[in-house]
Amino acid sequence: MNQASHHVVVVGAGFGGLELTHALAGQPVRITMIDKRNHHLFQPLLYQVATTALATSEVAWPIRHLLRKRKDVTTLLANVAGVDRTGKRVLLDDGSAVAYDTLVLATGARHAYFGHDEWEPFAPGLKTLEDATTIRRRILLAFEQAERETDPARRQALLTIAIVGGGPTGVELAGTIVELAHDTLRGEFRNIDTRQTRVVLIEAGDRILANFAPELSEYASKALERLGVTVELGRAVTRCDAEGVVFGDKQLAARTILWAAGVAASPAAEWLGAKADRAGRVLVEPDLSVPGSREIFVIGDAALVLRPDGRPVPGVAPSAKQEGRHVAATIKARLAGDNTVRPFHYKHAGDLATIGKRAAAIDFGWIKLTGWLAWWLWGIAHIYFLIGFRNRLAVSLSWLWIYVTGQRSARLITQGDDDKA
Amino acid sequence: MNQASHHVVVVGAGFGGLELTHALAGQPVRITMIDKRNHHLFQPLLYQVATTALATSEVAWPIRHLLRKRKDVTTLLANVAGVDRTGKRVLLDDGSAVAYDTLVLATGARHAYFGHDEWEPFAPGLKTLEDATTIRRRILLAFEQAERETDPARRQALLTIAIVGGGPTGVELAGTIVELAHDTLRGEFRNIDTRQTRVVLIEAGDRILANFAPELSEYASKALERLGVTVELGRAVTRCDAEGVVFGDKQLAARTILWAAGVAASPAAEWLGAKADRAGRVLVEPDLSVPGSREIFVIGDAALVLRPDGRPVPGVAPSAKQEGRHVAATIKARLAGDNTVRPFHYKHAGDLATIGKRAAAIDFGWIKLTGWLAWWLWGIAHIYFLIGFRNRLAVSLSWLWIYVTGQRSARLITQGDDDKA
Repeated sequence: MNQASHHVVVVGAGFGGLELTHALAGQPVRITMIDKRNHHLFQPLLYQVATTALATSEVAWPIRHLLRKRKDVTTLLANVAGVDRTGKRVLLDDGSAVAYDTLVLATGARHAYFGHDEWEPFAPGLKTLEDATTIRRRILLAFEQAERETDPARRQALLTIAIVGGGPTGVELAGTIVELAHDTLRGEFRNIDTRQTRVVLIEAGDRILANFAPELSEYASKALERLGVTVELGRAVTRCDAEGVVFGDKQLAARTILWAAGVAASPAAEWLGAKADRAGRVLVEPDLSVPGSREIFVIGDAALVLRPDGRPVPGVAPSAKQEGRHVAATIKARLAGDNTVRPFHYKHAGDLATIGKRAAAIDFGWIKLTGWLAWWLWGIAHIYFLIGFRNRLAVSLSWLWIYVTGQRSARLITQGDDDKA
Repeated sequence: MNQASHHVVVVGAGFGGLELTHALAGQPVRITMIDKRNHHLFQPLLYQVATTALATSEVAWPIRHLLRKRKDVTTLLANVAGVDRTGKRVLLDDGSAVAYDTLVLATGARHAYFGHDEWEPFAPGLKTLEDATTIRRRILLAFEQAERETDPARRQALLTIAIVGGGPTGVELAGTIVELAHDTLRGEFRNIDTRQTRVVLIEAGDRILANFAPELSEYASKALERLGVTVELGRAVTRCDAEGVVFGDKQLAARTILWAAGVAASPAAEWLGAKADRAGRVLVEPDLSVPGSREIFVIGDAALVLRPDGRPVPGVAPSAKQEGRHVAATIKARLAGDNTVRPFHYKHAGDLATIGKRAAAIDFGWIKLTGWLAWWLWGIAHIYFLIGFRNRLAVSLSWLWIYVTGQRSARLITQGDDDKA
């Protein structure tokens, strides 16, 4: 057991929190990692669980297993209820507290409905393993119910899947779902033809993948439509219910609606009593500390960090990791007696999104890639970033199998009750 | 689409129902397969999901995928509400009905509490995928809570796992859980030593594996105790609650109790208004038909079938398969105009159970095997019986990984609410 006196408490074992913990290895600190889940989730591949390509255990690993060799780290499964800034304690929901010298909140984001939380039961988002198995269950159940439905209109509504939000998650969901329906499930039903499934991607803006170069948005739209996805641009969703979705002057009868449109930060700002933007992200100082508390940092999706041009740093894994490394460097410097304020500078590596299993769009800024080459690069990059050899091997095998046979391995309908998923 | 006029309705896609369907391939019948789940479950390996060794999708496959090439089979995901024997219709819970010429009920069993259903919330059984993820969550959560618990007595109760029932399921759970605690999780906690976990196997009879030869029971008890399991014989459980379990004059403080003691048949007997034994199994004729309805058959765990010596045919996969093949042969004969009553004869292949990852007990009657040779035979047999090359490969890989590294791949705590799991 490490007896260092400086105690760093990290809340959240996502990309940012884990990277920070890794970067503090060997430092004279002891670390407590608190997370409300027992697993780190590889969110970039979560849509593949939702669409039956990967098993839940292929994209999630126990946090304490990832940190098992770090005898300086204690992992706690616990719910945080608040932060006592004066007393420097993290308050847990069982009434206990954990004292800190330095606190790093890396608590991520949830999906949000722009003030329309009543849409959630009809349009689940995709942030947790349970979200993914809920979406998987709904998609698969819609086909099962369509097989038994005799009314043509209701059957078509069951075979219509609306996806709200044309960012990478929406694009990736649309591409894999249309392949699931048109290829994987084809020939397995007797009363319906799954190739008649309609997948509609609804984006309020004037192009999908708005963060990418316009020519890549154009490419992605065409690639999706070639797969059979209908792309609807320029109309915002104004209603989601059991009948379907309304966007602008259009109405779509759809029994399955998936939400890939908005995110809201975790309650970190509330715990701190700190200022936040509309999405709940804490407004941090240039060094990622919280105004008024130099020993508290917020990183990843829970923080609003601005780039020199005023745009926010995007909520992706690489930015969370960069922020984690930056805060680790600040902590190291302070332990060495250097209290200079070190502003964070974000380096944008690029944007990428897959479109089904044969195409992708990658925007590195200096070069733009599309088609199968981009898809292979995407696949290799994701295998590389997967944590642990075991999972790299398992995911590679699952993908190879799907690529060669078109069959998916995790087509399970589990858990009866959506709301408790 | 097959236009054969004879319609066989099969309820339940377990080992019996699937085997019957396979055996009817090429016959002049059309088949409707009804199941309330979308997947066939390989129950003999379910305990490995409960103990984090395998992912849910490694032991379950979509029924309609398994039957995709059988154009004579229509698969329906539906809940059966009853059987109209006079009108020859299966009644579904949405008010619709499916007419049959021949009906085969292969609806299996659930775990049962001998009239103590109030024990269920404290002592989950193991029959479905959700049961397995519930047990997995409870075991993993107990260690997480123990890591945070400061009271020594409460901590020891969290680190005590009681398993009720010394049949193969109880023995297999005990062996893998003690390995999970003593090997896999070792070194990952900072406040507890997982090697102090107590696993107690409670059996009311005077030996575990009562269906095996006495020397194998003896061997299994010794092998379990060598692994660190406490085997308690000769006392029946009289209470299960949040504090633990009471058996005879003994009381054990255990926060995790697993139920591997009793099963009850599905409601097939109720649907039919047929006579059943205490465990709910339908008392069938020697040809597995239901008294008074020659066109209705009950097979597998839902039926009570007696051997010549008066003992019931055991509720295992091989007996369900044999019964499925037998009923298929009867249907074929009748279609050919042969209405002879064909009594079913059970051929007992043997009993087998694993004890952790290095030993097993196999009783073929004419030969008894123990130790690592038995373990390898068990592994090869189960890989062989797994449906589909993809899963054989995936499970082999998972096992090889665990065998070599001791690490398990599916250590996920999912779903917050036990009762809705």
